[in-house]
Parts: sequence; structure tokens; C-alpha cells
Amino acid sequence: MSDAHRPLRLLRAGIDTYQQPVVYMHRDCHVCRSEGFTALTRVLARSGDREVVATLNVVVDDHLELDVAALSEAAWAILQPGADAVAVFSHPEPPVSAPALRAKVFGQRLGESDFLALMHDTVSNRLSDMELAAFVTACAGDRLDNEETIALTKAMLAVGERIDWGGGAVLDKHCVGGLPGNRTTPIVVAIVAAAGHRIPKTSSRAITSPAGTADAMEVMAPVALDLEAMRSVVEREGGCIVWGGNVRLSPADDILIRIERPLDFDSDGQLVASVLSKKAAAGATHVVIDIPIGPTAKVRSFSAAAFLEARLIAAAQALGLNLSVLRTDGLQPVGYGIGPALEARDVLSVLRNDAAGPRDLRSRALDIAGVLLDSAPGAVLGKGRAVASTLLDSGAALRKFMAICQAQGGFTEPGVAPHISPVLAIRNGQIRAVDNRRLARIAKLAGAPGSPLAGTDSRVRIGDSVQAGEPLFYVHARSPGELDYALDYASAHPDIFQIGTGQ
Amino acid sequence: MSDAHRPLRLLRAGIDTYQQPVVYMHRDCHVCRSEGFTALTRVLARSGDREVVATLNVVVDDHLELDVAALSEAAWAILQPGADAVAVFSHPEPPVSAPALRAKVFGQRLGESDFLALMHDTVSNRLSDMELAAFVTACAGDRLDNEETIALTKAMLAVGERIDWGGGAVLDKHCVGGLPGNRTTPIVVAIVAAAGHRIPKTSSRAITSPAGTADAMEVMAPVALDLEAMRSVVEREGGCIVWGGNVRLSPADDILIRIERPLDFDSDGQLVASVLSKKAAAGATHVVIDIPIGPTAKVRSFSAAAFLEARLIAAAQALGLNLSVLRTDGLQPVGYGIGPALEARDVLSVLRNDAAGPRDLRSRALDIAGVLLDSAPGAVLGKGRAVASTLLDSGAALRKFMAICQAQGGFTEPGVAPHISPVLAIRNGQIRAVDNRRLARIAKLAGAPGSPLAGTDSRVRIGDSVQAGEPLFYVHARSPGELDYALDYASAHPDIFQIGTGQ
Repeated sequence: MSDAHRPLRLLRAGIDTYQQPVVYMHRDCHVCRSEGFTALTRVLARSGDREVVATLNVVVDDHLELDVAALSEAAWAILQPGADAVAVFSHPEPPVSAPALRAKVFGQRLGESDFLALMHDTVSNRLSDMELAAFVTACAGDRLDNEETIALTKAMLAVGERIDWGGGAVLDKHCVGGLPGNRTTPIVVAIVAAAGHRIPKTSSRAITSPAGTADAMEVMAPVALDLEAMRSVVEREGGCIVWGGNVRLSPADDILIRIERPLDFDSDGQLVASVLSKKAAAGATHVVIDIPIGPTAKVRSFSAAAFLEARLIAAAQALGLNLSVLRTDGLQPVGYGIGPALEARDVLSVLRNDAAGPRDLRSRALDIAGVLLDSAPGAVLGKGRAVASTLLDSGAALRKFMAICQAQGGFTEPGVAPHISPVLAIRNGQIRAVDNRRLARIAKLAGAPGSPLAGTDSRVRIGDSVQAGEPLFYVHARSPGELDYALDYASAHPDIFQIGTGQ
Repeated sequence: MSDAHRPLRLLRAGIDTYQQPVVYMHRDCHVCRSEGFTALTRVLARSGDREVVATLNVVVDDHLELDVAALSEAAWAILQPGADAVAVFSHPEPPVSAPALRAKVFGQRLGESDFLALMHDTVSNRLSDMELAAFVTACAGDRLDNEETIALTKAMLAVGERIDWGGGAVLDKHCVGGLPGNRTTPIVVAIVAAAGHRIPKTSSRAITSPAGTADAMEVMAPVALDLEAMRSVVEREGGCIVWGGNVRLSPADDILIRIERPLDFDSDGQLVASVLSKKAAAGATHVVIDIPIGPTAKVRSFSAAAFLEARLIAAAQALGLNLSVLRTDGLQPVGYGIGPALEARDVLSVLRNDAAGPRDLRSRALDIAGVLLDSAPGAVLGKGRAVASTLLDSGAALRKFMAICQAQGGFTEPGVAPHISPVLAIRNGQIRAVDNRRLARIAKLAGAPGSPLAGTDSRVRIGDSVQAGEPLFYVHARSPGELDYALDYASAHPDIFQIGTGQ
């Protein structure tokens, strides 16, 4: 055996590099020397019958012995080494998808086999974060056409699991993000399941927002269910609202989102592939997509919505999904609260038919549930919203929601943050616009979603008249420091609620 | 002071993450908790009057105390903390260039101020490696037009140093890479300096190739000179051949190359900006660019060369550089050797007028030196090559080269690798083509450039007739293991020297 192939003992580095496998070796270890490994080299580690391609970080002091390789949490989870395990290190072959990646970067169209190779290499960690960033960038804007979008969707689907619900309609909904507080999902699921349909909803945690549906739902019930637990909830209650991360229906999408999150740009094509691959993997047959439109929402104009809609419908047809799109008002937040617990409170007040609850959230949830019920097999078209309304008003939706919470592990009433402070109007006038992005940023500075009770709370809507000194919104925080952060940012941006005077 | 602002003690992690600043904190430390930091969050660290934006890696075991932050080598070098130093951590403001990056990713044209913001953020570590990968991708292929290329070049120049040679012509050359063994630089510098011109040449180490000029030169003389040492060599001898990395003339280019290297794709625009910003920063006034053309060279066709040439000339004019372009044969390697020592041996045999030396390397060096001498002020156009030839034949170039080596720290004769093995022709026939990329890969598998003596050695040229069993090339390696790697790859790819039979 040549020097290069002598194995290294494996240690757990105890370092979380967020899914990216990293291996730590001493600069002077025989592997680095004989293989010519340097920092950021991609290395192939084989241990037993498992292998991982990882990024090398080179240890230059004596923290690490020469015959040892330490693994980041992600690399450790993939190799799963036993006690005294060793690994052999070598240069990996270039990823099979490297030519496809290169072609896309240089603006060429890709075919089905190209996307399949790319997604296969994505889920098997063959592509580095920088290569994934290049892929995301190469697809950004309008660089995936319809056929490519369909091919990418199918490829993402092919490299993951797909739930088989054993026939019959399976309903689902999705909101193209960007609108704070738009927490219709728990209400829609409760209504649709109360109507006797199957709606196995997986939701995401916050990516760049102050709360994802999974974060808000988690304030009320456990959401980190695995596939078997999710299946048993749905078999019992018809619906669920669980975190998609433990179900891992679209592992390729999970990885691409990890890259898109810090970059904060994506594309219509990737958005379509992300949404539809997850829906198809979840076994959905009938899907409604809510597209909020507004200058500070994710989709900023009706023409952009139309473009996205055409993409969604084309890809859904190719996958055999029944898809409906609902364009909604994205000018201002929905509901009062922004942040996990504050949004959960709004959801509960709608389900409980609380007269002081947010009318806009109620109305939007009924719209979505209505379209979904209309699209289901055997529906009388146009009756969906009335059916939804009856189920909500009668308390059937609330009972169903509580039963789902119970099946997921038990209901908890959301709490209230210990530190609350108002942000006041600085002049008299009428609210002309709301900057959703900056308001969301305040909720994040206040601690959301890490602190579930943190966020913002506002009853003020576009068109309302306010007086100087009147609260525009309240900031909720877990600590005085976070409260200060958020308030500082609010002072620096007094036009988040734009107050018009005169005319 | 709020909890979040309490400082952490700084430790040196002793981990080399290749220029990317990384900070390691315990998951449960007060900063992570109160700021909501998770793995891969970008964090701003302030210590004394220095600051760095770094990527967070989260420590999940008890290797790190709760009141400590450990810094990677790159972060340590930037913050330069003293004993018992502490740092305060916070969320950095989004990079100033974020909107420009986003605009470019979505296909928009950028202006001078955009590129300036991007390059400023690049050199001050405000952009993550993923963001830099996105920038490189967004510019890839043909996505930078002429004006953008010029603006990027100026921006790269603006964020670095620029050497002032105090007036007069300063000559320089550059080869657009991709052709193994094309080591004309030491010969050209020796001839041009022997002709009485100033030619302060900085060269790179290998990026993706088996040897850069700096690697080959380093076999013969020290190259890691700093700016002052380089200046003194040039003042004494008229020329030098030093590694650009210590001179850091274009720090933005160094960082972009770090990203382009693992991605292995770039663009005409970035290539032009990279080359010309370095030349202008080095104070050059008259530059020759050698563009080898061939199916496995970097520039694959005459039309691609023409396109690149137009870009180079437009940008050079905008910078006030006198630029000449020489299109050369890129069908096969130049000289016999590929790898630092083997290329150095070829350089010396040409300078020594060794009759057995490579004619192609001699001829090409004379071509380049001729164009450069012709372009210099006061030259009689068309006489350059004859002048260059005389200086080489007379031994003046060799004496100048030895004097330069002496000034750089002393000359060393290149050695020979301990393990050498031939790769044989598998049939009779005529050499039709050479796969430069695969031949370079063999030299790398054999250990080049990490092992300076490693590489390949071949006297066989396109058009030569070979017999089965005759050596096509020799592999040189430091260890039997590396020799085996390279030979295994050669066996798997028997058509690196394509042997035609019949007709």
C-alpha cells in the first residue's frame, strides 16, 4: 500500500458547518503531503462501505494529531463511523454533472439527463457549495425555460422519496412567500380536512423570513414528525401541518434552499421546481398556489405573477398535477402578528371565530380553502368558499385543528413575549403603504424566529388614518437587547408605515 | 451593555480555510443565543480598531469554552489580535455591493460605481465565497460587455496598489494559459532585459495546471520576493521573474482566482480584467499577450481568439496600455517537459543554446520577445526578432538570466525525479493530435506542481511516426504511489497521443 492510501483515524470535530461536509486534517499528515491536499481541496473519504466527498480545512497547529482526520457534523452523519473507525482519503473523480454545470453557466440549455446528473450529484454531496452557488446563479432570473423547469422538477423528484397515499385525491396548498404574517395554512388544512378531504401538509421553517408555517405551528403543536408519524396523523385526521425537514421529501430542494438562503436570489424556474417537486413528492394530486402580489412582496407585479403562473401550470401538467393559482393582495402583511407565536395567536383567533381576530387572514384562508374545495373531485364548482365558511363558522374547523394538534403530540396555547414596546406615528395622516421587507426585518431583529415569542404586532392597515404619537405597531422581544435592536432599526426607518399628509 | 454586546475572548483556531475568514463559536455562547447566529451566518467581529466579516462555524461539543471565539488563519491575520484580545460580534450590514451583485445575477449591465463597490467588498471580505461564486458565474461566458470589462478592470486596479517606475517604457508579457510547458517567460525576460529594457515580470503559481511560471522559476531561483526586493532586482538587472502572490498587486484578482480555481470556469471579461489589472498595477506600459489556439487549449478557435483580442485591445486602450497580441499554435505542448523542474530544464537548454533543446520553445520565445522589442519606443519595426535571436545566440540572454537569478537570491540547477517510467505507443502510426488537458492531468497526478520534480517528458510531436512499444512520454514522480496514479490514468486514456493508422 502506498503512503497515500494509509488510513487516518476518524474523530468527531463537533463543528456544525450547516450540512456541508468538512474534513479537518493536519497540514503535515501523510495524506495531505502525498496527495497534495491543501485548504478547500475536495476530498473523497471512504470508511467501511460508506463514502463522502468533503471540503478540506487544514489544521496548522498541534490541535490535531498527524494520524487523525476530524469530521464536521454533516460529514460525521454521512459516514457514521463506529468506534476506532478509520477512513482512506483520495481525490474524488470530478462530479459526473460537471460538464452540465459548465454548460448551464455558459448559457446553454440542459436536457433531462443533465438535470438528473446535477440533482444526483447535489444530494450525494458531489458538488461543493461554490458549485451549487454557481448552479443557482446560472439558473437565476429567466435562464431556465419551460422545458428545463419541467426537467429540473422531475430530476428533483427522481432523487427523493415519493409518498404513496394509495389512490384518491390528495389536496395541498402553497404560498409563494414574501408576505409577512400570511399564515393561512393551519386554517386551510383544518377546513379542508373537516370537509373530509386528505391534506397532508408539510411546511418549511423560516428561510429569510421572521417565521415559516412550521415555526408558527410549532408554537401550538409538535411539527418535527417523521414520515411514519405524519402518515399516522393523516390517516387518523385527514390532515396535518408538519415540518418538511424531517420528512425530507425533496432532499435536493433542501440543499438548494441552503444555498439560495444566504444568496437571497432564486428564479422562477427554480421556484417552480422547488414547489412542485415537494408537492408531487408528498403525493399531492390537487394543489392551490397562493401568489401575493405587491411592490415589497416576492412577486412584485401582475405581469410577473402571470409569468410565474404559466410556468407553474406547464410544469404541473407535465407532472400530472391538478393546479390552481390564486392571485392575492401582497401590499401589506396579513393578520396582526409577525413572528411564530404572534401568527399562531392570529390563526387561533380566526379558528375560534373571535370577533377581534384579523378579518384579512380569515378572508384569505376562506378564499384558498374555497378554490381547493372547488378543485377537488366531485365538487360543485363555485360552492367551495361557502362550504369553507360554514365549516369555519360552525367550529368544525377548530375541532379538526385541535384533533390534528392532538394527533401530532398535543396542543399548547401560545405565550406572550416579556418585553413589548410600541413604535409611534411621527405625524398625522393616512397610511399609504407598508414596507413588508423592513417590517419583517424588525421582527427578525427582535429575535424571530429563534425566539418564538418575538416579532411585531400591528392593527394598522393601508387607508387607516393615524395621529402623531399613536402606536403603528408593537415590537415583542425576549430580551431588552433584542428589543433595542429592533427599535433602533425602526427609528432609522420611520417610513415603514408610510403616512401621507394632505390631498 | 446588552448581553449580545458582551465580548468574547479570541483564540487562534489554527485552521487554514484558504483566505476565507471563519469564526468558531460554541452553540450555547451568549452571542449565538442572543444574536440568533447559526452555522454559516455572516458575522462582523470588531477587535480594537480592526474588524472582519467572517463566516460562522458552530461548535457543538465542549472543545470550545462559552466565552471564546476561535479564528481561522485568515480571520486571525486580518484582526491581528494581541494577547488577551477580545472581540464584539454583531450582524454585519448587508454588503454595499449586494444590489449590484443581484442586478448582475439577473442579467443587468453594471456601471463603474457598481464594479467599484463589488471589488471593494471583495477585497474587504464583505462577500462570502458563495456570493463571489455567484459573481463569477454571473459574469461567465459572454455576460460582460466591453464597457463592463473596462469598468471591472479599472475597479480591480483601484482597490490595489500600483507600482510607479518613475517614467519610461515598462515592458511585460502574458500568456493566456492552457498550454502545458509553454514556459517562454524566463527566456523572454532575459532577452528583453539583455536588450536594455525594463521588464518587471510577476508570474502566478499553478492554478489548475501542473506548473505556473513561478513554480518553474522557483526550481532555479527564489521567487517569493516582496515589492521592495523585486524593485531592487529590476533596478539592478532591468528584469525579474517573481511570484505575484507576495507582491499582491491585484488583491481583488487574487480573491477572484481563488473562487475561479475550484469552479474552473471564467469569462473573457474577467480574463481581460484579471490580466490587464495586474499589468497596469505592475506599472507596465507595453504588453504582449500570447494566445495559444487549439482544441484542448484555453482558447479553442481563431474566432474565439479574435473575440478575446478585441476585448483586450479595447480595455488596454481605455487604460492607456500599448498592447500587442500574438496568436500561437496551441495544438500540442511546447518544449519537452511538463512540471516545474522539467520545464526549467527546457528553459535552461534554450538559454544555453543546447542543440538538443526544444526548438519549439526557442522559436516561440523569440517570436514573443521580437513583438515586444518591436513595440518598445524607439524600435525599428520588424527588427525585433532578429535582435532577440542575436541576444540569445550570443549568450547575452543566458548571462542576463543568471544575473537575475543571482539578484533574486541565487541560481540552483534543477534536479531529476527519483521515479521515472515510460508510457508506450500501443500501435504503429503517425501522431495526429495531443490532448493537452489529459497530459497535464497526468503531470498533476504524478505530483506536479507540489512535487517540483514531478511531471511528464515527451519528444514526440504531431506528425511524428511512432512504432508500437516506443515511448510516447515519460512520467516523473517523487513516490511510487504517485507514479502508479499517473500511469493508471495513462492506461485508462490511451489516446492522449492520438496515433493514426492508414491513409
